[in-house]
Amino acid sequence: MKQPESVQKLINAFSRLPGVGQKTAQRYAYAVIAMDKEDALDFASAIEGVKEKIKFCSICGNFTEDDVCDICKTRDHSVICVVSDPRDILSLERVAGRTFVYHVLGGTLNPLEGKGPDDLNIKQLLKRLDGVKEVIIATNPDVEGEATAVYLARLLKPMGIKVTRIAQGISMGSEIEYADEVTLSRALESRTEI
Amino acid sequence: MKQPESVQKLINAFSRLPGVGQKTAQRYAYAVIAMDKEDALDFASAIEGVKEKIKFCSICGNFTEDDVCDICKTRDHSVICVVSDPRDILSLERVAGRTFVYHVLGGTLNPLEGKGPDDLNIKQLLKRLDGVKEVIIATNPDVEGEATAVYLARLLKPMGIKVTRIAQGISMGSEIEYADEVTLSRALESRTEI
Repeated sequence: MKQPESVQKLINAFSRLPGVGQKTAQRYAYAVIAMDKEDALDFASAIEGVKEKIKFCSICGNFTEDDVCDICKTRDHSVICVVSDPRDILSLERVAGRTFVYHVLGGTLNPLEGKGPDDLNIKQLLKRLDGVKEVIIATNPDVEGEATAVYLARLLKPMGIKVTRIAQGISMGSEIEYADEVTLSRALESRTEI
Repeated sequence: MKQPESVQKLINAFSRLPGVGQKTAQRYAYAVIAMDKEDALDFASAIEGVKEKIKFCSICGNFTEDDVCDICKTRDHSVICVVSDPRDILSLERVAGRTFVYHVLGGTLNPLEGKGPDDLNIKQLLKRLDGVKEVIIATNPDVEGEATAVYLARLLKPMGIKVTRIAQGISMGSEIEYADEVTLSRALESRTEI
């Protein structure tokens, strides 16, 4: 069945979201049609609002409505946690005790996709190292994330900065029997005394 | 971490969609932030467009941008397929050969939620029965859908209209071993000669 044009447009818009296929996009579009007009217009203006107001923090690259984000504004800058994406900050903030600030790289090194050091927000990181005691590298534990971590460590260590990497090992609640070999060997290598 | 207000608003808007929790809403919101400005504004205007343009077909209750939907405009009206929701029309259109028109009830009978016959689009159905040979009832095979089907059959049969119900049985590709008892007994009752 041909959908009315306006519905098809909305389905296309929804299917641009990550992990949303045609069927889910359709479901969302129909939900919008069924919404109160007010709710739907709020939705539209929320999208517009984000595009108008959100920019990148001039220090760390996180999303913010101001020139400098709330985290950079209020915290001590002697420990910097490097992440590849602003989304990672959300997860880390849930567990970290407001003891460090962040730096968003905006991706990871990925030669296959032609993404080199110049494509990441590394220059900005180098500019803010004055008085920094430790840089925690919290990129994902995959090939690109590891390569990025190694690259940064080689860059920062000669400057006398302590560079650390978040630990890799068996996740809580998982079973050794089903752990993949790389994870298990990392867990063994990084074993700690109890 | 406190999100910037505009981001939080967008997350709230996304979490009003069906099946979207806080985490998914956040993912979608971040995707919108990462979108080109143009794409995001297109998205917002697609939502507005739908709310401006989409109304209900004055004959069948399906979504349409006109007074009467494309299906009602172009097809023979002698067979009407009754559905509870416009979404069901999409699925049926994928398999049906443009041989019938639809009628959207806008729900099913549900005494527990206080939804009686007057809350469904039944009056409008009764008005369009002139010359109709068959009414196919394609409500869901759950308690409410069945009750609605029985109610409609009792209403329409005395008017001399053939009332049919979509068949219930074992789905293609499923296994008898895992079929629930109701489905399996329906499949047995409705067995056909081969």
